[in-house]
Amino acid sequence: MLDSWNDGPTKAAIIAFAEGAAKDVAPEDRVAVFDNDGTLWCEKPAYIQLDFLVRRMAEQVGADPSLADRQPYMAAAAGDLGWFGDAVTKHYLGDDSGIKLLAAGILSAYSGLTVEEHAERVKAFFAAGEHPSLKRPYTACGYAPMAELLRYLEGHGFTNYIASGGGRDFMRPVTYQMYGIPPERVIGSSVGLDFADGHLRTTATPEFLDDGPVKPVRIWDRTGRRPIFAAGNSNGDIEMLQFTAAGTGPSMSLVVRHDDAEREFDYTVGAEKALQIAGTHGWAVASMREDWIRIFD
Amino acid sequence: MLDSWNDGPTKAAIIAFAEGAAKDVAPEDRVAVFDNDGTLWCEKPAYIQLDFLVRRMAEQVGADPSLADRQPYMAAAAGDLGWFGDAVTKHYLGDDSGIKLLAAGILSAYSGLTVEEHAERVKAFFAAGEHPSLKRPYTACGYAPMAELLRYLEGHGFTNYIASGGGRDFMRPVTYQMYGIPPERVIGSSVGLDFADGHLRTTATPEFLDDGPVKPVRIWDRTGRRPIFAAGNSNGDIEMLQFTAAGTGPSMSLVVRHDDAEREFDYTVGAEKALQIAGTHGWAVASMREDWIRIFD
Repeated sequence: MLDSWNDGPTKAAIIAFAEGAAKDVAPEDRVAVFDNDGTLWCEKPAYIQLDFLVRRMAEQVGADPSLADRQPYMAAAAGDLGWFGDAVTKHYLGDDSGIKLLAAGILSAYSGLTVEEHAERVKAFFAAGEHPSLKRPYTACGYAPMAELLRYLEGHGFTNYIASGGGRDFMRPVTYQMYGIPPERVIGSSVGLDFADGHLRTTATPEFLDDGPVKPVRIWDRTGRRPIFAAGNSNGDIEMLQFTAAGTGPSMSLVVRHDDAEREFDYTVGAEKALQIAGTHGWAVASMREDWIRIFD
Repeated sequence: MLDSWNDGPTKAAIIAFAEGAAKDVAPEDRVAVFDNDGTLWCEKPAYIQLDFLVRRMAEQVGADPSLADRQPYMAAAAGDLGWFGDAVTKHYLGDDSGIKLLAAGILSAYSGLTVEEHAERVKAFFAAGEHPSLKRPYTACGYAPMAELLRYLEGHGFTNYIASGGGRDFMRPVTYQMYGIPPERVIGSSVGLDFADGHLRTTATPEFLDDGPVKPVRIWDRTGRRPIFAAGNSNGDIEMLQFTAAGTGPSMSLVVRHDDAEREFDYTVGAEKALQIAGTHGWAVASMREDWIRIFD
């Protein structure tokens, strides 16, 4: 258990919580929520889901060349992932011009499919997709210490949920294989679905962007309980971590810090405030460099 | 098992499905969804939740007499449950004038509470609430044969969810006690929640009316699976029953028919189309009069 974690204050705090204070919480209330991008799997140089979307947009340009002179299709056709990464970074810095173009493209990329067809596309993507610099299958880009943490908490009566800004139906086909978390415990962003002729089909209408203050709302929707353990890595996880910390009973909020340029990535953009609050509020911080013996399996 | 069910084609169909065809479905995919009002508990002469809302509206008139001359507060203060019942019936018949007034009152009735405070109000209501004509606690207004069916399906590897037009957070505090269904498996209508200062508070903004075509969408959101068993009783359940029936594997769709004026109620308003489709599509029908040995525990 927790074999990939160095002995130190963070590992000690996890053990003290799970084997100590949490034992006073009824097992059915031992709900743990985990962000996904940057918390359970690698989110750099770009979100894995972005690759899934860009591939589709490039396909769409192939089928309809009139798309080729506007964003995000121009960048997709050129394989210019930098444009996409910039759009996301600017969003974190308060400039939403790029992400709005991107969102429109994202929303229509896989619209009109039945939910089952969409799942097949996701499975096909993960069967072949490889991380551009780590050179490992995307399904092997989950953090080994976090997978151990999931198993460890389960072993102590917790029920784990993912609560991610990533697409709910993008994650579901692989979360059981990667994390032991089944589809019904995956919370994420979603587009509206239309029901007709017995089937649900994806639309291009956004439903939830499961980030920031939306995360605790969707967690409540799905669980009907306030979590007692939460792990995140970015500013978009702050409210989820606060919701967890503000319960009347014992709780633990954990922030993963990306500070390992050698084995993974070293960045704080989009995480500054989360790390600052962790410092002032006594939340645990998992430093990839200091706390993790290995990053990947 | 199923001791409150008379031997007959409906009981036989349930057993043939659960102990036959469903055995070829992986246990994690044995998802069963149940409507609540009129399927698991009594919905006449008015929805139980309406009593919860009317009591609150009467309190609100007491605190602010300026409300007393408009609907739905006028009816609430006068204890005129007929006005509320009419609004719902007219809604089923296509006239939404009353239900719109009602909805606005409903939405603001419990707004501004933390989700935990709201749950306490619900618990207090159920601790005291009694059915007006059956003269039994609301928590004893669940149908015994359906509670047996829930246990029976669980015993055959199914996971049960509620998918109701009733309020998600109105049902959650009692569903485990009444049906063995925990909060994370209760899907229902909801108002928006606001996150601030670590807490989630109810708003007066509608989020989902979990009825008709919305039901399969919310079921997918919550489970990520297409159910293989569904039970409902009204036209608002048709799409959920169709979604279940349209899967590629074995499935069972069941409609509860209220035809027992002596022991419960006899009505088809709001259920005409569901019963008609059941007839033409070979869905099972549970007649309260013919199939159920007893209605309540």
